[in-house]
Amino acid sequence: MPKIINHENRKVQIAEATWKVIIRDGLEHASVRKIAKEAGLSVGALRHYFTTQSELFLFSMSLVSERVKARTLSKKYDVAPLDAMQAVLANLLPIDENQRIEMEVWFIFSAKALVDTTLKSLSAEIYHDMRLAVATLINGLVTLDIAKEDLNSELEAERLYALLDGLAIHHLLQPESMPVSKMLSILKFHLHTLC
Amino acid sequence: MPKIINHENRKVQIAEATWKVIIRDGLEHASVRKIAKEAGLSVGALRHYFTTQSELFLFSMSLVSERVKARTLSKKYDVAPLDAMQAVLANLLPIDENQRIEMEVWFIFSAKALVDTTLKSLSAEIYHDMRLAVATLINGLVTLDIAKEDLNSELEAERLYALLDGLAIHHLLQPESMPVSKMLSILKFHLHTLC
Repeated sequence: MPKIINHENRKVQIAEATWKVIIRDGLEHASVRKIAKEAGLSVGALRHYFTTQSELFLFSMSLVSERVKARTLSKKYDVAPLDAMQAVLANLLPIDENQRIEMEVWFIFSAKALVDTTLKSLSAEIYHDMRLAVATLINGLVTLDIAKEDLNSELEAERLYALLDGLAIHHLLQPESMPVSKMLSILKFHLHTLC
Repeated sequence: MPKIINHENRKVQIAEATWKVIIRDGLEHASVRKIAKEAGLSVGALRHYFTTQSELFLFSMSLVSERVKARTLSKKYDVAPLDAMQAVLANLLPIDENQRIEMEVWFIFSAKALVDTTLKSLSAEIYHDMRLAVATLINGLVTLDIAKEDLNSELEAERLYALLDGLAIHHLLQPESMPVSKMLSILKFHLHTLC
């Protein structure tokens, strides 16, 4: 009996194959033909789900932020506020194999978004979503009255968000110099300086 | 009378043409043919300077760090230590058109370095050079006795370096949300928190 796979699941499967090819061979070698092969489909079958490579790339990049959001919302954070904040933010860092893959795909697509107008607006959307999430957490510190008295929420949101992406990229580029433990201890230290 | 251009100058000219093509068309479209055209040379003439595309990309990426170093060392910093530190670090941020181009090229090549073994070791070299520069500045704060008493130099070097790259990337991705003025004011604020 053939497996019944619905339309959306098949799209996700193709996007995951796209991630694999991009990380293994680089974006410039991620042809539709190669991605179809990785997904175990014919090029024709893949075209049924994504008419163009551009459409496929867009969906593959948006899947990264979907995954980050779903993971962040699905967890419970039954700990002290600062620990909870750190646990939430750890969802945005490459702390395990799955999150490293997501972050690497995000990094490669972001570099492409600098010159690709289709990806540029999605990249902007992801940027603003993540920035909002970080700002909400900073505002939480203020509301809970554990933030420093003179805390500039807006500046701190930008500073923390930039620090997170900088740590993530340094881990991707030089995992020996910036291991997961160091990313997390710098994040923890940074959050403490805000309180 | 024909212009006399020495070998090294010609290589730099070709690398600058490579930057232009990469930023305009994307890395996957930066063929040797296109770069030669941009540099006003035949493919054969270009091959005289760079036998392979890989060699050309390597030189083009290394030119970024050469430029950053040369610029940083060529300036005088006759101001108070913290202002001098900020001025030195501003050389690593996309604060003007030239530095934005360098940073964009660095970002695009870094994304490629994740899957390209030739670029990976150069990427590691640049990482460690920049990290050392930031660490030297942090140690300077300690030596001058203006750092906070309990400052953890190693952690602060990593934190500052990650923050710098995060700010730079956010400016490249979303210049409206992270304009030059905001990058600089966050950097200034961050340096003050260290003292």
